[in-house]
Amino acid sequence: MQKYYIGADIGGTTIKMAVITEDGSIVEKWEISTNHKDEGNHIPEDIQSSLKSKLVELGIQKEQVLGIGAGAPGFVNADSGFVYQTVNIGWRNFELGSILNEKTEFPVFVDNDANLAALGEKWKGSGENSNDLIAVTLGTGVGGGIIANGEVINGVNGTGGEIGHITVIPEGGAACNCGKTGCLETIASATGIVRLAEEAISKNPETSLVELSSNGLTAKDVFQAASAGDKQAREVLDYVTDVLGMTIANLAIACNPSKIVIGGGVSKAGEDLLIPLRKAFDQYALPRTSEACEFVIAELGNDAGVLGGAFLVKQNLGLE
Amino acid sequence: MQKYYIGADIGGTTIKMAVITEDGSIVEKWEISTNHKDEGNHIPEDIQSSLKSKLVELGIQKEQVLGIGAGAPGFVNADSGFVYQTVNIGWRNFELGSILNEKTEFPVFVDNDANLAALGEKWKGSGENSNDLIAVTLGTGVGGGIIANGEVINGVNGTGGEIGHITVIPEGGAACNCGKTGCLETIASATGIVRLAEEAISKNPETSLVELSSNGLTAKDVFQAASAGDKQAREVLDYVTDVLGMTIANLAIACNPSKIVIGGGVSKAGEDLLIPLRKAFDQYALPRTSEACEFVIAELGNDAGVLGGAFLVKQNLGLE
Repeated sequence: MQKYYIGADIGGTTIKMAVITEDGSIVEKWEISTNHKDEGNHIPEDIQSSLKSKLVELGIQKEQVLGIGAGAPGFVNADSGFVYQTVNIGWRNFELGSILNEKTEFPVFVDNDANLAALGEKWKGSGENSNDLIAVTLGTGVGGGIIANGEVINGVNGTGGEIGHITVIPEGGAACNCGKTGCLETIASATGIVRLAEEAISKNPETSLVELSSNGLTAKDVFQAASAGDKQAREVLDYVTDVLGMTIANLAIACNPSKIVIGGGVSKAGEDLLIPLRKAFDQYALPRTSEACEFVIAELGNDAGVLGGAFLVKQNLGLE
Repeated sequence: MQKYYIGADIGGTTIKMAVITEDGSIVEKWEISTNHKDEGNHIPEDIQSSLKSKLVELGIQKEQVLGIGAGAPGFVNADSGFVYQTVNIGWRNFELGSILNEKTEFPVFVDNDANLAALGEKWKGSGENSNDLIAVTLGTGVGGGIIANGEVINGVNGTGGEIGHITVIPEGGAACNCGKTGCLETIASATGIVRLAEEAISKNPETSLVELSSNGLTAKDVFQAASAGDKQAREVLDYVTDVLGMTIANLAIACNPSKIVIGGGVSKAGEDLLIPLRKAFDQYALPRTSEACEFVIAELGNDAGVLGGAFLVKQNLGLE
């Protein structure tokens, strides 16, 4: 009898769901809207009812489902499936795991969404089953997931892998959404790159970035201007990749991974990002750490979370 | 039948050995000299023959020994017991685990010495069985061991936990023994503290450190001068604890530990070290990371390695 995993990647706007085979092929994926009513209390029943109809539609029996792996955008106790707090959903001290288990009668395993994305890339993406991997997502913010000895580092109260909030500017750094200043996120996110480019414009109105900025500057614009030879854009990116490369090198000295997986919108710059990033990394890492470590671009995009959810079930059931 | 673990902490000068009960009491501990002849090739037989006589002396039968946990000063593959390279012993690509197993006929498990010390503190020291712990040893150098999900992070080629070589000064830092510049070790080791104090003396000959330095300045002198109100000594220590506190905070954001265990000679300063260190840590860590995390001084001293060795056996045999 064919068995399946269910992945549910719960975000502030939509919940991405998928039915996934034991070897990690997506049979079907779909989305439902995130229901914010009553502090997100209806989300488990929304998942349950949507899943139920989908399984009927696909002709999958209950006993073919091995379990649900769910990602939540916030701090999670992965052992108990307890969600301490979330960013874009009203959950606070929410028993996601046990409520979803009660409603669906399937085994449920929960982790932070960025951690699940790291697990997804490990299993079916560019992580190539590495047991020691650091995933860095450069989007509006900077997210991360660290895998050591094959397992996600969730930590004692769910803040493990919050790479975006590593302090990179000890004094006088820009304010971060987390309340601190000088976090990696203020430099290496798309938002950070745009902020630095805007600072460069104000200091040097000669730059070609000025024109681009009239339509609202994006991180992509900065990469394109640098490629076209704009000096200010190049300086901004040199600074960003230096700071990011050093931060990843320092993490790599601690965790000694074989893969660094770079994802998120900014990673679409591809080699234009990876080449200077790798150069900075090599400058700051131990040679031995460097030689064992490969930089790759994430491959799974929006599917990383649901595939990571499936792998979390696989891992917890000892089916690895 | 009472069972025992054997710990062997192999250093450049001596090999510390111990017979340890299942609950972690040291029955007997002793040392033998590290035999550097033939690139350290005789070390396994030295351990074997010393252990054999000790077991006879104690009346312990072969079948009472559960296994040997050995620590090596260098890069190790903990899965295979293979030592890639060592610092003070001639080993390079040395099959420590299998050679020692062949000679003694006991199961042998190997890890880096600093990692074993972290495991020892976790099990029987101030780590209080925390599954998420960072150990930092401030001695001549800066060593470290990171435990996540209950296991040491050894990494893909054995450089995991090399906290001393995290870059804290991106440009123009002091040279480190590893070949890089600006490593944490150049600031937060006893050697680093003395170097910074000597720099302070050369800039400001008014300091009380001048007198102390005539007999060869030590890190302890710097702590004592600061306690006695010396401004330059205080500034040196404020700087050291700020840099160290930020580095540990950044690691803690990544690993979210419940314990930070500070050991080594410099840790003898106790609260004079911990109080400013904790203050710096709180400034740079996420509040949620901070509130879950306790700073403690290591308790086991030279016994940490052998106890960690015993725990490594316990863990690998599934006796936890």
